[in-house]
Amino acid sequence: MKVAALSGGVGGARLLDGLAAALPPGALTAIVNTGDDFVHWGLYVSPDVDTVVYTLAGLADEARGWGLTGETFHALEATKRLGGESWFALGDYDLAMHLSRTSALAGGATLSQVTARFADALGVRARILPMADAPLRTMIDTDEGLLGFQEWFVRRRAQPAVRAVRFAGAAVAAPGVLAAIDEAGVVVIGPSNPYVSIDPILSLDGVRAALARRKVVAVSPIVGGRAVKGPLAEMIQSLAGRTPSAHAVAAHYGALVRGWVVERGDEAGLPFEAHATAAVMRDRADRRRLAEEVLAFAERLA
Amino acid sequence: MKVAALSGGVGGARLLDGLAAALPPGALTAIVNTGDDFVHWGLYVSPDVDTVVYTLAGLADEARGWGLTGETFHALEATKRLGGESWFALGDYDLAMHLSRTSALAGGATLSQVTARFADALGVRARILPMADAPLRTMIDTDEGLLGFQEWFVRRRAQPAVRAVRFAGAAVAAPGVLAAIDEAGVVVIGPSNPYVSIDPILSLDGVRAALARRKVVAVSPIVGGRAVKGPLAEMIQSLAGRTPSAHAVAAHYGALVRGWVVERGDEAGLPFEAHATAAVMRDRADRRRLAEEVLAFAERLA
Repeated sequence: MKVAALSGGVGGARLLDGLAAALPPGALTAIVNTGDDFVHWGLYVSPDVDTVVYTLAGLADEARGWGLTGETFHALEATKRLGGESWFALGDYDLAMHLSRTSALAGGATLSQVTARFADALGVRARILPMADAPLRTMIDTDEGLLGFQEWFVRRRAQPAVRAVRFAGAAVAAPGVLAAIDEAGVVVIGPSNPYVSIDPILSLDGVRAALARRKVVAVSPIVGGRAVKGPLAEMIQSLAGRTPSAHAVAAHYGALVRGWVVERGDEAGLPFEAHATAAVMRDRADRRRLAEEVLAFAERLA
Repeated sequence: MKVAALSGGVGGARLLDGLAAALPPGALTAIVNTGDDFVHWGLYVSPDVDTVVYTLAGLADEARGWGLTGETFHALEATKRLGGESWFALGDYDLAMHLSRTSALAGGATLSQVTARFADALGVRARILPMADAPLRTMIDTDEGLLGFQEWFVRRRAQPAVRAVRFAGAAVAAPGVLAAIDEAGVVVIGPSNPYVSIDPILSLDGVRAALARRKVVAVSPIVGGRAVKGPLAEMIQSLAGRTPSAHAVAAHYGALVRGWVVERGDEAGLPFEAHATAAVMRDRADRRRLAEEVLAFAERLA
């Protein structure tokens, strides 16, 4: 059975790592948010795609929660000395990805092609599809104006209050994205931020319609009323006007998701089928255990 | 008295460092070869300008003879892992220069402006002028075809035999270059390769005419029949059909240079006024000592 999984950065990437371990080779296709992609130091940076590639390659810094293990920041240090922009930390090893990608894109390759080539070079066996080759940018409409996602999240530390999330650009899925959903026995939505990691994927032409024909299960990114990582709790309050909860996330997706995997205790009152378990992945064994539970739960769903 | 100095990479940069130490602040203008500039990993790299900036900033790795002291090569390592180009070693600290410059050039700045800004940020007091803002590329005509300088020198390790050196592009000096020569009481040609470091500067419109009106002294890059660094000895044999010697270098420049500073013993038979001394700079004290001898010798010249 084929599995497609929609993912943002860290949380989604960790579940993908578990799914890749739990499934036979070739069964998993990851469809990854590119709404936060941006150009920094003249380089094309694709934060969620890189997090997924690095996590599946076993190169991610698990303790810090972003970037590469053993990373150094010498180019950043020297950039500061030259008076350059230093609000976004690109590491030295990581730079190779952005440099190689930027050159390849300038040479006419697509983001999908480049991602496949680099994932292969790093020994990743799962198929990783950026959601789109054409730019579709997540813009945060705030009290202080419209900001690019990284501008808002990293440079402004998610401080300006969010009024709305918008997507600017072409809503065209990358080659293979719709087919991967159509061919999947189960589609998994990872524990990623629904507003800025999953909604960009859902906004692509044809994705919602394709998902409506499939069995979709999701893992809650809210555990015991708190976001495992990132600004989701605050976004639920400002965008949905609700108390952060697995329930609020489930309400956001509505009938698109057939079954929910949530933290024990978070299933109470959930108007969908649910599997309650330990939903936070603390190590690689935990990822595989959670992935296996997600797949078994999906199988039990009618 | 103002001094202008023409320079390529390491040898020229070391003499510049000595001249900067020997002269009052503001007296020295370095005019630096940009014929070897090239694009690598999508970044604009200016090897001689960078060597001069780093050397004058006290950041150059003196033992290795190129790049920055304490440099690391993590981006290069990761680029190899991705299957990218690794024949030219860009270090992590050094990358900041190329990234910042490439972005600034893309934003409409000139190479001169960017160089001035970075030299200032690194605390360099001498004025550093790239010879040209427009591209003028040194091409090596070899038995195996026409190669870019770095392609020939680094990638092919200077192996293909050289038939001729050509300059492709606009022969337009950067703003300030001709004026710096016109205002100089002495022009110093550093111990750089005449064919690929100094000739590109001499090929610019107006430079030879401006130099003909000034007192020009040069330091020989050939010492006891050998090049201190690089492929000059072989180039003298293949391009001039002569045995490598200070004499052969002096014959190349002809009447343009009024006086020569050479290694003791190399002055015999030289058909120009000469100052014989220890011409190899082994440390920073040596640079200053040689620079002071060059300036005193120039003063003695009629």
